[in-house]
Amino acid sequence: MRYACDGGKRLRALLVYAAGETLGLEAQLLDAPASAVELIHAYSLVHDDLPAMDDDDLRRGRPTVHKAYDEATAILVGDALQTLAFTVLTRGAGLSPAQKLGMVEALAEASGSCGMVGGQAIDLQSEGKNLSLPELENLHIHKTGALIRASLKLACLASPALDNAQADALDRYGKCIGLAFQIQDDVLDIEGSSEDLGKTAGKDSASLKSTYPSVMGLPAAKERAAELFSDADKALSVFGDSAAALRWLAKHIQSRNH
Amino acid sequence: MRYACDGGKRLRALLVYAAGETLGLEAQLLDAPASAVELIHAYSLVHDDLPAMDDDDLRRGRPTVHKAYDEATAILVGDALQTLAFTVLTRGAGLSPAQKLGMVEALAEASGSCGMVGGQAIDLQSEGKNLSLPELENLHIHKTGALIRASLKLACLASPALDNAQADALDRYGKCIGLAFQIQDDVLDIEGSSEDLGKTAGKDSASLKSTYPSVMGLPAAKERAAELFSDADKALSVFGDSAAALRWLAKHIQSRNH
Repeated sequence: MRYACDGGKRLRALLVYAAGETLGLEAQLLDAPASAVELIHAYSLVHDDLPAMDDDDLRRGRPTVHKAYDEATAILVGDALQTLAFTVLTRGAGLSPAQKLGMVEALAEASGSCGMVGGQAIDLQSEGKNLSLPELENLHIHKTGALIRASLKLACLASPALDNAQADALDRYGKCIGLAFQIQDDVLDIEGSSEDLGKTAGKDSASLKSTYPSVMGLPAAKERAAELFSDADKALSVFGDSAAALRWLAKHIQSRNH
Repeated sequence: MRYACDGGKRLRALLVYAAGETLGLEAQLLDAPASAVELIHAYSLVHDDLPAMDDDDLRRGRPTVHKAYDEATAILVGDALQTLAFTVLTRGAGLSPAQKLGMVEALAEASGSCGMVGGQAIDLQSEGKNLSLPELENLHIHKTGALIRASLKLACLASPALDNAQADALDRYGKCIGLAFQIQDDVLDIEGSSEDLGKTAGKDSASLKSTYPSVMGLPAAKERAAELFSDADKALSVFGDSAAALRWLAKHIQSRNH
């Protein structure tokens, strides 16, 4: 379980903390939700990499869990990491039972059959098919978008006094960042190297998976990502300077090469 | 997900309801925890049956999920069933946020790396080894015992006024039933038919797994199960007649042939 959690960009945890900073929350309030969302992400990668799923040998620059250990261990590690995410939420310091329960609900909704796992199921059924742009967006809204949006929502749930305009703004930011991140992933799969990515590059194009570049062309995909990053930035205008961390994070993601 | 949940004995749900009846609770209070514990159980069976794990073709009298669908689907179905268990707990009607959160905590603890999944990991590492009786008990206390005990605990958490003696009695009942149930499983694996069991009979003995009959002999294993059923019954004495449902359930389990 520790091996599976080592490394990675911690993007989702950073989103939780940055949104918390934007809302004026103490960082310690966010330790539990930030850990929980990363545990869910880590479990999904372990199961996603399994031979019956994406069959990947390399993850975060190291052998995948089923390569380093074995397949049965990888299945159990993923299972237990998911459980641990919910345990961690129940132990969040400084949060009321109602707040923690709201976080359990939000995280479960984002990661279950109507969220991330639903997206993975759509992904499996889409292999070898040419998806339309709305179909591709629907896949990614579930597969990666839901958990990224949940990261923002978890920070909102830690806030004792949140108005709707703030919650909506963070949700819009999360939606844009989530989609932009995925388009970028597809672009990096073509333009990046395995060494930079820490996972096998060129895999999606080799397996004839529908990607943003394959559906809309590489230049249009890059343009769409840039648009989304700009929309994410605009969504933060309601916060003024207090959203500096979220703005920095968006820029940082936009300029990543892995 | 529905396919994976169909059928089965619903033992864990029955334990939640019977314990609730013993504590004088309305049955509706227990719908959420009873469903949640069955969802966790169902997910564990789907993953347990996978080729990389026990590689079983038959479950509850029908093809296992990866046989009826495929391996990737079975992995995702198990993942999403686990998530759904926690979603269901957040929606429990008539329970306070603190009660629901306590249930999330109890269910996660019982099913994670220190509970059920930990037991499965021990089970995998024990294949081909001759376990001692304490090692075998430790395996089953985690693999099947934790979730059965959690069923009783979930009912306790739904009770607005519970004294320690009642909680301890139910926990003792759960411990005894859990272990007795497992010994019986091992006995039925030898004496039962695949038709009655709805799963492949004789599998454990064929795969040279350590079982209660293999470690202590068939007659001693049967005797130990009978002892545990008797201990379970004794634990209920603190409740008097109100524990009728739990007593009935213990008798029903004891006389099962599948």
